[in-house]
Amino acid sequence: MSDALTFIDTNLGRFREELNEFLRIPSISAKSEYDDETSRSAEWLASRMREAGLEVEVLATEGHPIVLGEWRGAGANAPTVLVYGHYDVQPPEPLELWTSPPFEPTEREGRIYARGSADDKGQLYMHVKALEAHLATSGSLPVNVVVLAEGEEEVGSPNLVPFVDAHLERLACDVVVISDTGMFAEGLPSILFSLRGLAYFEIHVHGARSDLHSGEFGGSVMNPGNALSQIIASLHDDQGRIALPGFYDDVVEWDAETRAQIAALPHSDDETREELGVAALAGEQGFSTLERLWIRPTCDVNGMLCGYTDEGAKTVLPNHAMAKVSFRLVPDQSGAKVKELLEAHLRNVTPAGVTWELKELHGGRPWKARIEGPYFDAAAEALEEAFGTKPVPMGGGGSIPIVVEFEERLHAPALLLGFSLPGCNLHAPNEWLSVENFEKGIGALALLYDKLGAHAAD
Amino acid sequence: MSDALTFIDTNLGRFREELNEFLRIPSISAKSEYDDETSRSAEWLASRMREAGLEVEVLATEGHPIVLGEWRGAGANAPTVLVYGHYDVQPPEPLELWTSPPFEPTEREGRIYARGSADDKGQLYMHVKALEAHLATSGSLPVNVVVLAEGEEEVGSPNLVPFVDAHLERLACDVVVISDTGMFAEGLPSILFSLRGLAYFEIHVHGARSDLHSGEFGGSVMNPGNALSQIIASLHDDQGRIALPGFYDDVVEWDAETRAQIAALPHSDDETREELGVAALAGEQGFSTLERLWIRPTCDVNGMLCGYTDEGAKTVLPNHAMAKVSFRLVPDQSGAKVKELLEAHLRNVTPAGVTWELKELHGGRPWKARIEGPYFDAAAEALEEAFGTKPVPMGGGGSIPIVVEFEERLHAPALLLGFSLPGCNLHAPNEWLSVENFEKGIGALALLYDKLGAHAAD
Repeated sequence: MSDALTFIDTNLGRFREELNEFLRIPSISAKSEYDDETSRSAEWLASRMREAGLEVEVLATEGHPIVLGEWRGAGANAPTVLVYGHYDVQPPEPLELWTSPPFEPTEREGRIYARGSADDKGQLYMHVKALEAHLATSGSLPVNVVVLAEGEEEVGSPNLVPFVDAHLERLACDVVVISDTGMFAEGLPSILFSLRGLAYFEIHVHGARSDLHSGEFGGSVMNPGNALSQIIASLHDDQGRIALPGFYDDVVEWDAETRAQIAALPHSDDETREELGVAALAGEQGFSTLERLWIRPTCDVNGMLCGYTDEGAKTVLPNHAMAKVSFRLVPDQSGAKVKELLEAHLRNVTPAGVTWELKELHGGRPWKARIEGPYFDAAAEALEEAFGTKPVPMGGGGSIPIVVEFEERLHAPALLLGFSLPGCNLHAPNEWLSVENFEKGIGALALLYDKLGAHAAD
Repeated sequence: MSDALTFIDTNLGRFREELNEFLRIPSISAKSEYDDETSRSAEWLASRMREAGLEVEVLATEGHPIVLGEWRGAGANAPTVLVYGHYDVQPPEPLELWTSPPFEPTEREGRIYARGSADDKGQLYMHVKALEAHLATSGSLPVNVVVLAEGEEEVGSPNLVPFVDAHLERLACDVVVISDTGMFAEGLPSILFSLRGLAYFEIHVHGARSDLHSGEFGGSVMNPGNALSQIIASLHDDQGRIALPGFYDDVVEWDAETRAQIAALPHSDDETREELGVAALAGEQGFSTLERLWIRPTCDVNGMLCGYTDEGAKTVLPNHAMAKVSFRLVPDQSGAKVKELLEAHLRNVTPAGVTWELKELHGGRPWKARIEGPYFDAAAEALEEAFGTKPVPMGGGGSIPIVVEFEERLHAPALLLGFSLPGCNLHAPNEWLSVENFEKGIGALALLYDKLGAHAAD
């Protein structure tokens, strides 16, 4: 094991250069004009995984391909670890807000700035390098490993569940390890106890046959922009709660222990406020900020477009308005139910004179972890050894829809430990990954593989 | 006079070709990248006005130039007519909704489709051709004429009032004639009794320092998109009235006679609904559709932009949202007062955790006409003779801010008679002008010049 850690230390420079190569490929899964780059990203990753010592296949799906790497030398008695990650990234817009170009990784103040550095290429690549460290030094691993890297996580993983269902035997495992999350704070490694689900929609409001002159028609027809605003405003009440009737029916109340653990974490609303540059935090009355993020659902506008938005004053009465609106869900909410509630609400609140249309873009189920047992212990030890401090349990405000699907289909628990840091601009301009976490994280993962083998043998 | 009308008949083909040339120049005043084209449009117009027999200057302003054409051969005892129009046009977006390109005039079913065909190049050019018809046939006009064509009407005429103030003697006149409006219906010529004013704003809502991940932060901060929707929704009450406290204080109630004239016009809500393709009309309770359009103020979203609006699902919590919102004003409202009321309202309703910013884009005062006297009689006769039916009085829902300014500064009444038709897509894709109205309108204007001279001599 110490050989593997030495190997990592010795090769960090090369690992960094390789990561930069990976980050330079604009594998934007949401945009079809980047399909070739997304494929190239998969092939590039497959080559590096082969060099690390895995047997690798790039498997076509109806969308972007899945890269599957395997090493099964630990034998039938050793546990099998399924490592899941994704090589696709979010669109980088708005480009003008990036200090350095999104697909030209740039180091500043100990951070690697690039789209995908934290989410998830950087973290996925840490696993590849941890595996390489073992295989290059001892020629072996204490566990069997299957690495599954998909290229559609950022568009809702439409082809992953069918893929899992079609390869249940090949993917059979004892534990699923995912590094696509963050640490609670710098120097404070963390293991996740929850993830929120997602129900992402486009609401379209249609008015007249064509755009109208706002002078010639203003006041006599319902304006889709005004109507859409009314609709969106009606999604919350004045307590910051989501106003769809029945929305909270399936929201589980968390146990006092978890809420106490959350309350015990080092968190300052004032610091968060200052970091974000806002005068006040906001949200659902009766819950703390971390509770609002981790154990309560929410509803956000992700985008909105209507009429004329360029320079100057165009006196148009637009005939169409669109908003991208997403709900973060908590156990036991389901996207299908939320869609029904939203449709019922749209029928109720949409003013006369316009029509609505609801498009479901993607969704994912919320998740609640089992944070105990040998795999959890292995992770806790590996993180403590690599970072010099015990990991804390934390919730995840984001969504990794596949987690629940893996657990149900493979009958294996998921272990979520990641290395991005608060403020790392996930899905925003200037996304970054800490250089220190990239380096310590590879060590932590190498230790994790070691301890997963040891704990399973207990 | 009959020579002039014969001349018009004979030259209609050439007039049409010239108009097409005029319409091909994309003189989009709101967009600085079209500044050269806007200038070219002014020069082109000046050349045609010279050919018509006017003395013409293209006068620089701080923005787009003003084209001034003069013919003063009628002598000091004849009345002087100031003809006002504009050679700039609205932006053509959204381009994909145009059946034929906006700057490639195309005739279909008796209509000339092009940006500016109705608003206002086509109508302005009709005046030029009516003047040419007189000067080419009799070498003279019964009135002195000053034609003032500006290139900034679509951006609020920022340099026109200073220009008028600087040229009061040169622009001195007995009546201002403007053809930048429409007829109440096909075959039914009209003279305007009112115009609404305009107060056009951009409301910006700012949140965190940068865009955030909607999973990592959703539920803990106020979303500018949601906040903007709340703000816009709060601008109306459930009676369709504008909910800014004090907004209606300066709205004059119109007299019973005018309301009776409005009620007597041939109008069908059902037909309007069907033409527009909406299930219901909307607006302020207690007023008819025409009243809502002509004598009541309104508030419309003209554009809205926030976050990610491209293909796919980006889970971003945007840090900025913008709406273009404009109010149509009626006598005696003022844009300055509305701005104050809106600012007070924004202070009241903007939720904690975001900040607002209000930009005033442009405005214009509402207008109420004097529809009696010799000039009105001249217009009524000219229209009846050209179209074979008495003109009706109608209100204007749109704004021509300069009308009030002309009247006040030049101490002359404004006479608004125009030739566009309902449904002609002003400020929208597929703007058109009726070929028949272009042709009859030139005749009507030639008759108008004749009768303005005759009535003044009464």
